Amino acid sequence: MTRLPEEVHSNKAFGWAAKDSSGVLSPFNFFTRHEIVGEVTEIGCKVQKFKVGDRVGVGCMVGSCHSCDNCMNNLENYCPKMIFTYGTKYYDGAVTHGGYSNIMVVNEHFAVSIPENLPLDATAPLLCAGITVYSPLRFYGLDKPGLRVGVVGLGGLGHLAVKFAKAMGTNVTVISTSPSKQKEALENLGADSFLVSRDQDQLQAAIGTLDGIIDTVSAQHPLLPLLGLLKSHGKLVILGIPGKPFELQVFPLIQGRKLLGGSMIGGMKETQEMIDFAAEHNIKTDIEVIAMDYVNTAMDRLLKGDVKYRFVIDIGNTLRPSS
Amino acid sequence: MTRLPEEVHSNKAFGWAAKDSSGVLSPFNFFTRHEIVGEVTEIGCKVQKFKVGDRVGVGCMVGSCHSCDNCMNNLENYCPKMIFTYGTKYYDGAVTHGGYSNIMVVNEHFAVSIPENLPLDATAPLLCAGITVYSPLRFYGLDKPGLRVGVVGLGGLGHLAVKFAKAMGTNVTVISTSPSKQKEALENLGADSFLVSRDQDQLQAAIGTLDGIIDTVSAQHPLLPLLGLLKSHGKLVILGIPGKPFELQVFPLIQGRKLLGGSMIGGMKETQEMIDFAAEHNIKTDIEVIAMDYVNTAMDRLLKGDVKYRFVIDIGNTLRPSS
Repeated sequence: MTRLPEEVHSNKAFGWAAKDSSGVLSPFNFFTRHEIVGEVTEIGCKVQKFKVGDRVGVGCMVGSCHSCDNCMNNLENYCPKMIFTYGTKYYDGAVTHGGYSNIMVVNEHFAVSIPENLPLDATAPLLCAGITVYSPLRFYGLDKPGLRVGVVGLGGLGHLAVKFAKAMGTNVTVISTSPSKQKEALENLGADSFLVSRDQDQLQAAIGTLDGIIDTVSAQHPLLPLLGLLKSHGKLVILGIPGKPFELQVFPLIQGRKLLGGSMIGGMKETQEMIDFAAEHNIKTDIEVIAMDYVNTAMDRLLKGDVKYRFVIDIGNTLRPSS
Repeated sequence: MTRLPEEVHSNKAFGWAAKDSSGVLSPFNFFTRHEIVGEVTEIGCKVQKFKVGDRVGVGCMVGSCHSCDNCMNNLENYCPKMIFTYGTKYYDGAVTHGGYSNIMVVNEHFAVSIPENLPLDATAPLLCAGITVYSPLRFYGLDKPGLRVGVVGLGGLGHLAVKFAKAMGTNVTVISTSPSKQKEALENLGADSFLVSRDQDQLQAAIGTLDGIIDTVSAQHPLLPLLGLLKSHGKLVILGIPGKPFELQVFPLIQGRKLLGGSMIGGMKETQEMIDFAAEHNIKTDIEVIAMDYVNTAMDRLLKGDVKYRFVIDIGNTLRPSS
């Protein structure tokens, strides 16, 4: 991303340079290239939140209207004029280019502070994947100790959902089509139980046992078995968007007053809260750090699901300016 | 329904006789024959809530387990062992027969008191249709003055949803496929606006304007336009069960954090609260009182949608015991 003179001249912006900055490559075409961390190298004179040398991160957004109901309620992520960090038009008409650069300029409102005890690289994916699971756990009230929370899918989002839900004190069941992920879920990520979603006996035994489910799967899958796992008044939160519409039987919604909801990333205030929570509970993304020239290989491996769980590109060391 | 000796002997029950009792004939095959009103003629010695001569009503339920989480939270309607007033087995194995009788015996827990200023006949349908719309307005927080609430479908449930939502102080939009219902909605029921759901221009102009929608339609219909009418974080509450599953596009749920939920009647505490609210705000069902021997004609008219909005059978005067 080139410097945006408008921002610098308005004195509400700061930039940071490549030293130790990281970007993230994710398999989803919509939310790529927007989990960015680095150090502040320069600030505008009106900047209040940051100083040179601070460790900062930028997630999916770099702009919003600041005046709608959502913006007024710290929900810039739902602002109709929200500007994505990658691939949309900025205020000045330039297309945003996300984290594929050794320098970035951003309004301080859309940057968060990263505490010293969090490593920059393993923190980067929290800025999209992390907040995407943290926000619905909070909003849908699935953050109370003792509640039983299901996590569908054990990928970039899912493994973070397990970590955050456990840190909130809930009892976590991982629900996956792959029995091979059981050991990972229980031993490495600390889930309390594991359910193979294709095993009818396991599903039957777990009917009506969960207070809520965070469904991270983007592929087509049936909702009815998941609704069946919920207690009365339970909540199924969908985070992935399959190519085709879901088939929805409403009887469980009516008979059990169950809810179906969605959620999209989180506002800036909540993103900082999530990062601070991660620092407090030592939550990191499981990552594999790569150099920029490994990107094509990484893309091939992503398509095969061969990454646990995010590639993080060390742009600072591999796109170092020649001058 | 014959007297149930178990109930009488347990001294937790009371009966009432036919004097001025009314039943309701509704077009839905599941929830028929369970909106019953009358006067208490006899009580068991442990009955505390009622005395002979009291005006009482029984809705969809006559039993539940009294020990599950739902029962403990006044949500007997979601108890897995809930006993319907019509067509399910009672504790003693007898099949429940609802209101098609000149006498009924019921546990006092499942009867509500009907204030003197409410007419018995026009109150009867509140015991199912009324609580079915009242409960989700409360549960989903669509009961705050100034909120904008949509009501889809203007039948037995819909016309009561308009009345309750207006009495709660909300701004009500009726959404219907029939332009012919506009006058009824605005002039007779007091709705604030009317939207023809097949009119794309009207739909387009109303996008993102509603805080919540109570959808009372049981016929197959698309959800996407309704989700489009909601503001961010808006709630679509489905009360009808079509024969086929809905097609659900989740993008609006994710992008706008919109909710899809259901609801089924209400608990006994809330049913009494609803009746008291109706008494306070003078809310009555629009009904047509018929004699028992008109039932077959009424069924034919129901199939044509030719009733505003509920038939109420005057059982007390048409099934008077011969002895």
